[in-house]
Amino acid sequence: MTRFALTLEFDGGPFMGLQRQAHGPSVQQAVEEAVFAITGEHAAMHAAGRTDAGVHASGMRAHVDVAKTIAPFRLMEALNAKLRPAPIAVLACQVVPDDWHARFSCTGRAYEYRIVNRRAPLTLERGHVWQVPQPLDAEAMHRAAQLLVGHHDFTTFRSAHCQAQSPLKTLDRLEVRRQGERVTVETEARSFLHHQVRSMVGCLALVGLGRWSELQLVKALAARDRQALGLNAPPDGLYFVAARYPEI
Amino acid sequence: MTRFALTLEFDGGPFMGLQRQAHGPSVQQAVEEAVFAITGEHAAMHAAGRTDAGVHASGMRAHVDVAKTIAPFRLMEALNAKLRPAPIAVLACQVVPDDWHARFSCTGRAYEYRIVNRRAPLTLERGHVWQVPQPLDAEAMHRAAQLLVGHHDFTTFRSAHCQAQSPLKTLDRLEVRRQGERVTVETEARSFLHHQVRSMVGCLALVGLGRWSELQLVKALAARDRQALGLNAPPDGLYFVAARYPEI
Repeated sequence: MTRFALTLEFDGGPFMGLQRQAHGPSVQQAVEEAVFAITGEHAAMHAAGRTDAGVHASGMRAHVDVAKTIAPFRLMEALNAKLRPAPIAVLACQVVPDDWHARFSCTGRAYEYRIVNRRAPLTLERGHVWQVPQPLDAEAMHRAAQLLVGHHDFTTFRSAHCQAQSPLKTLDRLEVRRQGERVTVETEARSFLHHQVRSMVGCLALVGLGRWSELQLVKALAARDRQALGLNAPPDGLYFVAARYPEI
Repeated sequence: MTRFALTLEFDGGPFMGLQRQAHGPSVQQAVEEAVFAITGEHAAMHAAGRTDAGVHASGMRAHVDVAKTIAPFRLMEALNAKLRPAPIAVLACQVVPDDWHARFSCTGRAYEYRIVNRRAPLTLERGHVWQVPQPLDAEAMHRAAQLLVGHHDFTTFRSAHCQAQSPLKTLDRLEVRRQGERVTVETEARSFLHHQVRSMVGCLALVGLGRWSELQLVKALAARDRQALGLNAPPDGLYFVAARYPEI
C-alpha cells in the first residue's frame, strides 16, 4: 500500500459536504469513485477538515491508500480526468509515510471567509461569497475579533451536531480587513468546532453592523450557550484554505 | 424623458451576448424587460460595448430613457429586484444630460482578460477564466504585447462579423502580469474591433507558450489577414471593466 497525500480545490455548491452522506453527493464519494475507476480499489479518503454543504476549499488536504503501483503525478492526472465534470481538482499529490494522516497529523487549519459588502445583488460571485447589503465597519469587526482569539470554551459558536469531545479550543488568529467592497476574515487554529467559523463571522458581522457591542460579543462567548449566538453566516463565503503538518 | 446612466456587472455565461438577439437571452433584453416591469415603457438600452456570448462585465456602462418620474436610487433598486434571478446587477445609476450617450460619448474602453495557468482543472472559477495548462512566460507575453500598442490596422485580430467601418485602431495599453498561477492581461483603447481583445490574447498566449516569436506576432499584424491569426482566446476570461467619458 502506498499512501498519497492530496491537495484539493473544490466548489462546495453542488455537494452535501466533504464527508460521504447517504442522502446526496459529497467530495469524499467523488474522489473515492475516481480512485476506484483508476485502481479498482475501494480506498477510503480521509481529509483534514469535514466541511459542510456549500463550503468551498482552495487547499484541502486529504489522503488515500492505494495498492496499485502508480506515480503521484500519474495518479493526480488520472484523478483530475475521472473527477470531471465535478468541480473538484487535485492540485498536488505526493507519497507520504504510512503514519501520516491528513486529519490526525494535522496541526493547524486555516479558513478564509469572504463577504461582499454592497447593496447590489451578486452576479459573478453568486454562491461564492456572502453578500451583506448594509455597511460593515471592518475595523470594529477586527477589534472585536481579537476578543475571541485565545483559549476559550466556544460552546456558543458550536453547532448542535458538533461531535468534538470538548468545546475548549485555542483560536490562534482571527483577522478582518476591507479592500473596497470586499471584507475578508482570516482565521487559524489547531482545530475548529462544527460551525465555529461561520458562527464567529456571523457575530462579528453584527458588530460590524453596529447591532452588537464588543461587550455583547464577550457576553455571548461567556454564556457558553448556543442560544446566545447572534447569527450563523451562510456557507457560501467559507473557504478551507490550508492545513499545516509537521515536516515529514 | 430622463436619461439614466447605468453601471452594470454581469456574468456573461447564460447570455447570447449583451445585445438583443432573436435566438436567445441577452443582457439588453433582461434590462429592457426590467425597465418595462417598473415603468410600463419600452425603453431601448444602449451600452458602451457589445460583448459576446460568455463575456463578462464588472463595469459596463449603459443608458435608458424613462418618462416616468423616478429617483435614480429607486430605479436602481427596482431594476435589481426585477432582474433577479438573472446574474445582472446595477451597481450605479445617475441622471445624465440628454446628449450623453453610453456608446457614442464613450472615449475609452478597458478590458481585462484572466488566465489561470495550471494543469489542474478549474473548479471555483469555471466559466470565469481561461485555463492554459502549459507554462506561460508572462514576461515574454508582456514584451510582445508592446508591439501591438499604437495605431495599427488590426484586420488580423478582427472577427469576420465585425461591423466597424475601419480596421484602424489605436491601442493605448496592453499589459500582461503574473501573480502566482494567474496571468492577467489589461488593455485599453478608445474602441476595439469585434474579437480584438480575445484575438490579441490568443496570439500573446502562443508567444507565452514559446510557439510564436515576437517576429511572428509582428508578421501576423502586418499580414492584415484574419487567416494569419494564431488563436482566438475563449470568451470565459474576458471582462469589460470600465468605460471612460468626458466630464459632464
